[in-house]
Amino acid sequence: MASVKVFGSPTSTEVARVLMCLFEKDVEFQLIRVDTYKGQKRMPDYLKLQPHGQALTFEDGKLTLVDSREICRHIAGRNHERGNKELFGTCTLERAAIEQWLQTEAHSFGPPSSELVFNLAFAPLMGQEKDEKAVVASERKLGEVLDIYERRLAEDEYLAGHKFTLADLSHVPNAHRLGSIPACRSLFASMANVNRWWKQITNRPAWRKVVAMQQEPAPVI
Amino acid sequence: MASVKVFGSPTSTEVARVLMCLFEKDVEFQLIRVDTYKGQKRMPDYLKLQPHGQALTFEDGKLTLVDSREICRHIAGRNHERGNKELFGTCTLERAAIEQWLQTEAHSFGPPSSELVFNLAFAPLMGQEKDEKAVVASERKLGEVLDIYERRLAEDEYLAGHKFTLADLSHVPNAHRLGSIPACRSLFASMANVNRWWKQITNRPAWRKVVAMQQEPAPVI
Repeated sequence: MASVKVFGSPTSTEVARVLMCLFEKDVEFQLIRVDTYKGQKRMPDYLKLQPHGQALTFEDGKLTLVDSREICRHIAGRNHERGNKELFGTCTLERAAIEQWLQTEAHSFGPPSSELVFNLAFAPLMGQEKDEKAVVASERKLGEVLDIYERRLAEDEYLAGHKFTLADLSHVPNAHRLGSIPACRSLFASMANVNRWWKQITNRPAWRKVVAMQQEPAPVI
Repeated sequence: MASVKVFGSPTSTEVARVLMCLFEKDVEFQLIRVDTYKGQKRMPDYLKLQPHGQALTFEDGKLTLVDSREICRHIAGRNHERGNKELFGTCTLERAAIEQWLQTEAHSFGPPSSELVFNLAFAPLMGQEKDEKAVVASERKLGEVLDIYERRLAEDEYLAGHKFTLADLSHVPNAHRLGSIPACRSLFASMANVNRWWKQITNRPAWRKVVAMQQEPAPVI
């Protein structure tokens, strides 16, 4: 029995981040999904998506965590010798660089990205009006963040240096979703280095496995 | 929060039987699935299939049940006024006829069907040798059972009369699987009334919903 358990839907950004980390680190785990059927209808998965309500719980033996970035740090630290050994750096200096970009993702890239994904990809599916003001503000913020990324990625292949690390991984779920939204895709595509990086990080085998898990059967309605 | 919870994989015969009953009765429920990933590999779902080891647990409030036919009786009895109101009969006489065929399914149709499904559909996928002796014996037994069904279904549209009931429902998961095995499909097809009944029961909307739930993403290997 796997001691690592993930409770949640792989279509959630937070859950997807953790799953990619588990695949990079080649860790055995159980995924526990809960789907609710109301009479003949399946309640759609996108209702579980962030930023408007979702659930992620992670258990490793007796330890329980709920923050996806914290979970990724735990997985990478605890399974140092498994899978991708460079994911969380191999020395203090590397780890400091990774931490810097993990924080940037959490505080600068993540919030406008989640806002855009929700308003442009999911609100229409849910028959909700998009928040036009939030969209404009988020596009501006994301553009500013990506300008910084473009300069950083002109110096090195990945955010924390020449190796793919947790710093990049943490961006993948939202970056992949943004790529499916034409307005956002063109923002990525307009920046040569960001665009190269986007393709590299979203085409990693560990992420393609998560994408396959997200291909759920069509909602039964 | 749904008070009815089903723990298991919809690809399991036992779980599929319960799910079809819940859809027929238009009952709200939660399906909790557990998938195990070993490193990069997902452990395939067919390992969970009967008759060689599977798991089904059903909770309705504080009640817990594990036998799929018992669970169907409970769902149909408890939700008498919901969905398909004729599923478990509307009087003692009807219920007695339904019970008779529920028992026949459990003791005569089910065992050889499960044996055939396992040996002809799943053993090859798992790289296991089929048990040729068991296959021959089960084909003979199933043929004898279906001879009786053919005569019964010449008299009435369904096993317990002119309405679709739990008696028929209980057969659906194995009947549908058998239909995908050429040797077994031809056994059904050779009997006019069994064949008509097979098509009717496997084409019900409630069952098509279960089939959609079984269409899981391709195993990630």
